[in-house]
Amino acid sequence: MEKILRTLKLVLEYDGSDFAGWQVQPNQRTVQEEVERGLFSLTGERIRITGSGRTDAGVHALEQVASFRCKSSLPLKAFKHGLNASTPRDICILSAEEADRKFDARRTAIRRTYRYKLYKRASAIARQYGWYPNIPFELDKMQDAATVLLGQHNWTSFCRENPAITDPVAIVHEINWVEEEHVIWFEICANRFFHNMVRIIIGTLLEVGRGKMNKQQLQIALTQKQRDLAGPTIPPQGLYLVRVEYP
Amino acid sequence: MEKILRTLKLVLEYDGSDFAGWQVQPNQRTVQEEVERGLFSLTGERIRITGSGRTDAGVHALEQVASFRCKSSLPLKAFKHGLNASTPRDICILSAEEADRKFDARRTAIRRTYRYKLYKRASAIARQYGWYPNIPFELDKMQDAATVLLGQHNWTSFCRENPAITDPVAIVHEINWVEEEHVIWFEICANRFFHNMVRIIIGTLLEVGRGKMNKQQLQIALTQKQRDLAGPTIPPQGLYLVRVEYP
Repeated sequence: MEKILRTLKLVLEYDGSDFAGWQVQPNQRTVQEEVERGLFSLTGERIRITGSGRTDAGVHALEQVASFRCKSSLPLKAFKHGLNASTPRDICILSAEEADRKFDARRTAIRRTYRYKLYKRASAIARQYGWYPNIPFELDKMQDAATVLLGQHNWTSFCRENPAITDPVAIVHEINWVEEEHVIWFEICANRFFHNMVRIIIGTLLEVGRGKMNKQQLQIALTQKQRDLAGPTIPPQGLYLVRVEYP
Repeated sequence: MEKILRTLKLVLEYDGSDFAGWQVQPNQRTVQEEVERGLFSLTGERIRITGSGRTDAGVHALEQVASFRCKSSLPLKAFKHGLNASTPRDICILSAEEADRKFDARRTAIRRTYRYKLYKRASAIARQYGWYPNIPFELDKMQDAATVLLGQHNWTSFCRENPAITDPVAIVHEINWVEEEHVIWFEICANRFFHNMVRIIIGTLLEVGRGKMNKQQLQIALTQKQRDLAGPTIPPQGLYLVRVEYP
């Protein structure tokens, strides 16, 4: 009798510091590979998992979502606890649940939220969990300019060139800022993100904050679809994938 | 002409993760040694610095205070910037100021404040900056029992044995708790602390929180001066030296 394939959905947290990112790469330590290895030791099946998106080296995730199919009839609790036991400590499985047969963590996702942690002063502590720009900047200018980015745009100027994506269009639903004593959190929610998009957006907003660009130039950068009109890609360690939403 | 000795006071932040603690030890990377090496490359003088207290391996400091004497006539700014340039990135010099000739970062200090970061759930991220006890505990029981610790006591039961200290008496001025979504901060202010004191105090309060001890037993542990009546020493990575106060 052939076993019925189950589709499972995992929610996982990870510390990106010691990973070469999400996606499996030869001779590199990646999150995907560690989870797949855990699934193999748990089920004996060679399972390929799909993440909602590929985070880069150094980028953290509070709630990354992954999906996969398997033959195993293990209960959900065994997936959660077994995977937590068999994956390294910089990965935590927060939940495992049954999903619709057609569920795909990447394709089914409708909204993603990222946060970036900017330190307001140089800090010795937790340098792998935030970034200090080391230049003076005016936050209110950045906040004002950021409103230009809301809505549907072609993000060519704000992502790493990728010949496979000819039309990098996405809708930015929300941008929020939270200012704490020594930290500024930038939060952005969109239907999808392209490679390095959040890091280039903040890199460009920092150019505005330090007076090297103004709101109008940001607007032009967006409409001209030319990567060199936008600002630099800032470092990965301040970036967190916070949440992925499904219908 | 003989140069006049200056006394300087440094305030410094450090990430304890990759240090074998504050104090110089052979073949170990320590904060004291890195700062002394920085001072040597800045001034050419072999300078010995005194910290307000010795933090253990893995313990962080937001505002450690150190003092030293030197012959150098370098301006204060040069000490701050020069030391920041010549010490590794997990040490930040926050300020350098002239101090009274008799100032001694350890002996002159009248109050020290430490904080401990307890995670309320297992976390993959920032495991070197807090600790998850992995047992259920009731915070209100811990908060109630902690009131027993306020005031002047002999802390023999709550510190690592040290033949050099026959009378470990200290006054605990304040204990505060701050609860966030996934974190509990425990803050304690005293005139002085003994070795492992904060970590044993919280280790004991956790015994109360999980129902293995009650408030009365905590009281007994305090008065009996017997280390084995108190709880375990919890890990260092949740501990932060927050502030040192002087008259």
